[in-house]
Amino acid sequence: MPRRQITGFSNPTVKYLRSLREKKHRKAAGKFLAEGLRLLTDARECGRVPEILVMAEDRDPHPLLDALEAAVEAEGGEVIETSDDILAKITGKSNPQTVAGVFGEWDTSLKALDRNSAKIWLVAQALRDPGNLGTMLRTGDAVGAGGLILIDDCADPFSVEAVRASMGAVFTQQLAMARWEVFLPWLRSGPGSEHGGQLVAASLRDAVPYRSAPYVGPCFILVGNESQGLPEDYELACDLRVTMPMMGRADSLNAAVAGAVLAYEVLASLG
Amino acid sequence: MPRRQITGFSNPTVKYLRSLREKKHRKAAGKFLAEGLRLLTDARECGRVPEILVMAEDRDPHPLLDALEAAVEAEGGEVIETSDDILAKITGKSNPQTVAGVFGEWDTSLKALDRNSAKIWLVAQALRDPGNLGTMLRTGDAVGAGGLILIDDCADPFSVEAVRASMGAVFTQQLAMARWEVFLPWLRSGPGSEHGGQLVAASLRDAVPYRSAPYVGPCFILVGNESQGLPEDYELACDLRVTMPMMGRADSLNAAVAGAVLAYEVLASLG
Repeated sequence: MPRRQITGFSNPTVKYLRSLREKKHRKAAGKFLAEGLRLLTDARECGRVPEILVMAEDRDPHPLLDALEAAVEAEGGEVIETSDDILAKITGKSNPQTVAGVFGEWDTSLKALDRNSAKIWLVAQALRDPGNLGTMLRTGDAVGAGGLILIDDCADPFSVEAVRASMGAVFTQQLAMARWEVFLPWLRSGPGSEHGGQLVAASLRDAVPYRSAPYVGPCFILVGNESQGLPEDYELACDLRVTMPMMGRADSLNAAVAGAVLAYEVLASLG
Repeated sequence: MPRRQITGFSNPTVKYLRSLREKKHRKAAGKFLAEGLRLLTDARECGRVPEILVMAEDRDPHPLLDALEAAVEAEGGEVIETSDDILAKITGKSNPQTVAGVFGEWDTSLKALDRNSAKIWLVAQALRDPGNLGTMLRTGDAVGAGGLILIDDCADPFSVEAVRASMGAVFTQQLAMARWEVFLPWLRSGPGSEHGGQLVAASLRDAVPYRSAPYVGPCFILVGNESQGLPEDYELACDLRVTMPMMGRADSLNAAVAGAVLAYEVLASLG
């Protein structure tokens, strides 16, 4: 299939691609944008091939780019060549990557998760910062977590910022979104070790030191909103509350940092 | 001293305050902006009082705000009242905090650091994201670190984003900036345990597992640039290289996350 050349900023496809930087347009289309050869290669190797592949005209040749282009064409997708300037406009980045792709969003309901596929799961409640969200996906990949469950109103995991911060883990980690009222019964009805899975949060309430806490898998590590933390009743619903040392003036860590320190502790404990 | 009222967007003081969101203006003035009652109170309790205090007209009264105002007046500073809209314009935030302050920058040379005041120090090399930088300051406060040393060209720790992400730790942590060529001799000439202080980095090169590594204080935890990591010769100059498990596809963590997981491990090891 020949590549389509796009040269004009006012081209409807450029407008469509740009529109995917906004949540309402992503939700209406059910699509999202991801950039970078490495990230798109991670996606391909996880079975996610872009429906539209956009490449800079003056890119350097690369075998991974050839593989990507072949995969897109094999699945009937479209390959577009355009200028750096237009790529910058599409991705909102002054120094854009030389390649970007449009992906279809996928099922993010709890029933799409296989909770027994991993010993660690990350759970974020009302996490508002897409960078924190992407960082949690990236950490999940690193600790061998199954995925990330987003509770209540979180940032969109398919935003450009979250996808970028995930460094590709948005494609490798399982992802679900649910209200707390739906998540908790789902967790408790599962076949996991204790109540379907151990729900753990960092807390000051009736908590044990995080370094010697009795973690069991599947262990669901719950992190709260950046400014409010977890609601009290969410904390109380946890199977295990742990404290982390706070040696200074602050009483909390960045949400993604807290999740990562706990996740590495659970990984060391469960092996 | 009476409070000055500012009602116009074109007021020169408003322009000056807004200009502090840009690095070149901060450097020219030697001043920076911080927002929020809690953060400004942390600053005051650490002996840093704003030279100019800006308050929203429709703020709620608060004893900490009274204490702040009194401190500013006691030190001959200026107190300004203005509208929410103007505060939003100054801080670049649509829902601004009801109070902001202008602080003088302070000495950030290595000689201002007391390396024996803490067992843990964080060191970041070419860290470009102000959010990551602020998060590292916040983590440093939490683990009882002495402070953060910024090597080579890093984001500005006095940017609004970094100050915000630090959650006040920019005032509680010691802060220094230096080129690598200056930092390394400084480190080696110090009175610390081994070569003046143990320099530790996460690495894949000739490294030991981070959970059982022989940390000694003062321990300097070195984290590299977000996309490039550490230069090879910087890694090789470290006294200890440690590996962290990477169970997934990615071969690295977010810089602030890696620093935090290591810092909590060193804290657990050194006590």
